[in-house]
Amino acid sequence: MKTEEVAKKLVELCRKGEWMQAVNSLYAKDIVSVEPRAMENMPAEMRGIDQVRGKTQWFMDNHEIHDSKVTGPFVARDTFVAKFDIDVTNKASKERMQMSEVGIYTVRDGKITREEFLPLAG
Amino acid sequence: MKTEEVAKKLVELCRKGEWMQAVNSLYAKDIVSVEPRAMENMPAEMRGIDQVRGKTQWFMDNHEIHDSKVTGPFVARDTFVAKFDIDVTNKASKERMQMSEVGIYTVRDGKITREEFLPLAG
Repeated sequence: MKTEEVAKKLVELCRKGEWMQAVNSLYAKDIVSVEPRAMENMPAEMRGIDQVRGKTQWFMDNHEIHDSKVTGPFVARDTFVAKFDIDVTNKASKERMQMSEVGIYTVRDGKITREEFLPLAG
Repeated sequence: MKTEEVAKKLVELCRKGEWMQAVNSLYAKDIVSVEPRAMENMPAEMRGIDQVRGKTQWFMDNHEIHDSKVTGPFVARDTFVAKFDIDVTNKASKERMQMSEVGIYTVRDGKITREEFLPLAG
């Protein structure tokens, strides 16, 4: 698949809330996933599809998603960007947050090989 | 300046329509600027602040901007993203377009050293 096809499929799956299906079908085995900072006992940078599946499962297990909006994709060459606005409650802390962030994705040989998330500056 | 300061200044100047001031105050001399594709007689990739000033001047001379909205910045490490929604008419063709794109910016030593633009996929 070309970058634009991968990008559109990712956005489509995220809009349906099918986060794990997106990882399983579109991510390379050697995916590198970079968060803005370390979270709980997870490092900011994770390597390999098993770690990314673990992070995705952790997010789903520990958060209640009330609403989410995905904008994009924005595509050029081997790169695409999607914007995520997510209204979410952390189940443990009961804290409800409006998260706004973009993901920058790199595609190689039809699979996502790198994703990097950038939060909206306060 | 740190990445977040540079990012916020860029967004502030773009919101005011002060595109050339943004280039003059925030861009490195060896800036690399990458558009999705070549335009008229300009290559997709331009190098050096003089070429980028030329592109900015060409854009301002040849387009009438009716409205623009800048979303962001989204910031992590040495990278930031801003989203631009611009309602613009090409003066020569009289074609009015709603452009939606994101810019991915790299900051080094307090200056923007690379910008890459990605249009919303159709």
